[in-house]
Amino acid sequence: MKTTFKKELIGREGVVLLDTIRRLNRRNAVDRLMKLLNKTHPADIAWVFRHLTPDERSHVFNIIAQTGIVGEFLSELDQAIMLELVGNLTPKFIAAVIKEMASDDAADLLEALPGEVAGEIRKYMGKADRDEVEELMQYHPETAGGLMSPDFMALDGELSVADAIEKVQQRSEEMEMAFYLYITNGEEGQLSGVLSLRQLLTNPPYRQLKNIMNPNVIAVTTDTDQEETAHIVSQYNILAVPVVDASYRLVGIVTVDDIIDVIREEATEDFLQMAGAGKDREILLKSTLSNAITRAPWLFASWIGGIMAAVIISLFEAELQKVLALASFIPIVIGMGGNIGTQSSTIVVRGIATGRINMNALAQVIFKEMRVGLLLGTFYGLILGVFAFFTYNDPLELGLVVGFSVLFAMALAATVGTLVPLVLKRMDVDAAVATGPFVTTSIDIIGVTAYFSIAKLFLEI
Amino acid sequence: MKTTFKKELIGREGVVLLDTIRRLNRRNAVDRLMKLLNKTHPADIAWVFRHLTPDERSHVFNIIAQTGIVGEFLSELDQAIMLELVGNLTPKFIAAVIKEMASDDAADLLEALPGEVAGEIRKYMGKADRDEVEELMQYHPETAGGLMSPDFMALDGELSVADAIEKVQQRSEEMEMAFYLYITNGEEGQLSGVLSLRQLLTNPPYRQLKNIMNPNVIAVTTDTDQEETAHIVSQYNILAVPVVDASYRLVGIVTVDDIIDVIREEATEDFLQMAGAGKDREILLKSTLSNAITRAPWLFASWIGGIMAAVIISLFEAELQKVLALASFIPIVIGMGGNIGTQSSTIVVRGIATGRINMNALAQVIFKEMRVGLLLGTFYGLILGVFAFFTYNDPLELGLVVGFSVLFAMALAATVGTLVPLVLKRMDVDAAVATGPFVTTSIDIIGVTAYFSIAKLFLEI
Repeated sequence: MKTTFKKELIGREGVVLLDTIRRLNRRNAVDRLMKLLNKTHPADIAWVFRHLTPDERSHVFNIIAQTGIVGEFLSELDQAIMLELVGNLTPKFIAAVIKEMASDDAADLLEALPGEVAGEIRKYMGKADRDEVEELMQYHPETAGGLMSPDFMALDGELSVADAIEKVQQRSEEMEMAFYLYITNGEEGQLSGVLSLRQLLTNPPYRQLKNIMNPNVIAVTTDTDQEETAHIVSQYNILAVPVVDASYRLVGIVTVDDIIDVIREEATEDFLQMAGAGKDREILLKSTLSNAITRAPWLFASWIGGIMAAVIISLFEAELQKVLALASFIPIVIGMGGNIGTQSSTIVVRGIATGRINMNALAQVIFKEMRVGLLLGTFYGLILGVFAFFTYNDPLELGLVVGFSVLFAMALAATVGTLVPLVLKRMDVDAAVATGPFVTTSIDIIGVTAYFSIAKLFLEI
Repeated sequence: MKTTFKKELIGREGVVLLDTIRRLNRRNAVDRLMKLLNKTHPADIAWVFRHLTPDERSHVFNIIAQTGIVGEFLSELDQAIMLELVGNLTPKFIAAVIKEMASDDAADLLEALPGEVAGEIRKYMGKADRDEVEELMQYHPETAGGLMSPDFMALDGELSVADAIEKVQQRSEEMEMAFYLYITNGEEGQLSGVLSLRQLLTNPPYRQLKNIMNPNVIAVTTDTDQEETAHIVSQYNILAVPVVDASYRLVGIVTVDDIIDVIREEATEDFLQMAGAGKDREILLKSTLSNAITRAPWLFASWIGGIMAAVIISLFEAELQKVLALASFIPIVIGMGGNIGTQSSTIVVRGIATGRINMNALAQVIFKEMRVGLLLGTFYGLILGVFAFFTYNDPLELGLVVGFSVLFAMALAATVGTLVPLVLKRMDVDAAVATGPFVTTSIDIIGVTAYFSIAKLFLEI
């Protein structure tokens, strides 16, 4: 059995590989290391590199640089690590490596490098390669143009099946993902249909491609946002989506493996943004200082909110003086508000990201969340009121005060938690960016204001 | 130009479709509705169904039930809506629809239905279909066995390229995703290699498949977890992964479109779980009451935490009596702790999910987060101390108290936020499940305890 059964790579198998590479490197067993690296999938080596020290990385990379997998390996790496490694190479050597890479990966690498280094490298590249890469670099990295690969198979609709098969056989091995043939018409190469390799095989050799192709091809334009492109590929279960320019000329394809990366990356960014931890998905690779700097601004929002809460509470010093027990319930009032608000905003942010919310019928979503807030607020307010009444029975009104405050804070928090991301989205701001810190901060402020106002009302009567 | 350019379906285009379907349905324009539904992609109709009322859904579905797309449409639907619609159909009719569905989708549908209804339906199914579906239903839905489709192309390694091409041409249209040919050996059909359709075309007709196949095929077993299967497909950029049983017999393939669904669903579940909002990704479709019931238990955790915080604060009544201003800073101390704790736990939960954390080298991750907590705690503690000193200068120690409390709360919260998900993962509990509510609750308690203990210490001297 030569079959490779992959099982929990990220767990046991990955760790074994990591330890082995580490041990061989320590012993400086270059030959055995090279043999091992050559038979390991570049994606697995890239995973290992995340967990090596910079010294180990530089060492092991010197060996990889002598193998044929260096190009593929570089395109699998996290950007921070790629930049670290490439920094030690000469522009000439990088140019040679880039020649071996898929041109979309090469464009990504050049984009990540400092401008002058990229310029140096380009001097060493052949004209054809350089043109192809520069063509790709003109698109924004987060659009279909920035994602696409120019290695696709396009044939004129006038060709016969037999001609097409011959063309497929002649093409070099470049395109590993050739499962669709795109059919174009005219000299400009405008996209007119699509055909699978299998359909090519099952049709008689004399038939013209334009008569057997599927003319309902789903396409995107070079400036389609990557998130939208991902939606389309996953919505219609396709393996690649063709990309056309403004004159409908086919210029590239975005394949499903890149789409998976986009989906994962967008989810990670949303996670981090909702927690107010920036949006850099490589944050675990950062130094303590730059990690702290990334996270500091969002904490500042919450700091300002806390100061405002402190100022508000001190306005109610008289009430607090009268009933010291009010202080005890501050955490639960703002905590319950904060938690239901986070629930609401998370449901809404994710609902927007996955297309489950119809942005033209928002009233429904908002009223539903308000009802949920009222329902849960009534329940938790009631049991808190009863608890407070039986444990802190001086004054008797305390139960009412905390009960109503929780009800009020939760109902309001659910509403605010729903509204903030919807409003941000309407204003065309990424709903995840500001939702997290903004929602919790405003709920803290709303919570204490409501709490002490209700206390004042009840205790003064 | 017949090419379809999809642009922001979930936005404008989807809403136009939704409105049109709604209008035609109101006017009872059955013929025009049927025409429109027939030319719309089933995935788009499924999206529209999320935003129709139950009455509209039942109406429109009666029309879809008469078209050929009903099977594909059902498999694109959210489960809650599918069950709602299928409830009105006779078992006999459902059996007829199921015959048109891919057998993995059919198995999913039968699994979602109540046991007796599924039993009724099975009676009306042909033996071959029933066997195929029952075979699939024996696997857990969240494993490779539960995800796989039995429609794949497997050929014996002894066959020649010419034989293989003939076999490909003979196969019915069933398999839309046929891009890999799997090569088996022996009568048992054990997996021995893989070949792309393109490789078939570019090799001479007399050559045997076993001599041109790639023997390093990456495979999973029927009981491989779906998340792990998704990791493998995305790690190695493959379009389908073959699934083998305990005796290495090829029994199915998991295609990349199902993997995309898994990745999206797992991300959504993690989002909801971290916010303590259950894990039902169809929560937006639920009624107010069942929505509230799903979210209530997690809020209970935070309620208990709040009660404990209240009890702790009342233990420090004497300190509070002496310095009433202490109450004002409760929200900021627990808020800063809660926010940095959420940052840390989010980074760790997502790091585990995306394989960025090496579970064998956790000390590194924990110490890094502790350092970040200390750094940010020092900064925000310092500015808060200065603020408190200049605004609430009675007693003078208040600045020190709140400054140290924030430092302490933030450093501890970052540590707890990191430890909780790591410990859960080590105990083989899904890190996202309990992290959210557990982290915020314990940080509230730690925060107030630290705050008032520090206050006691400083104010008593």
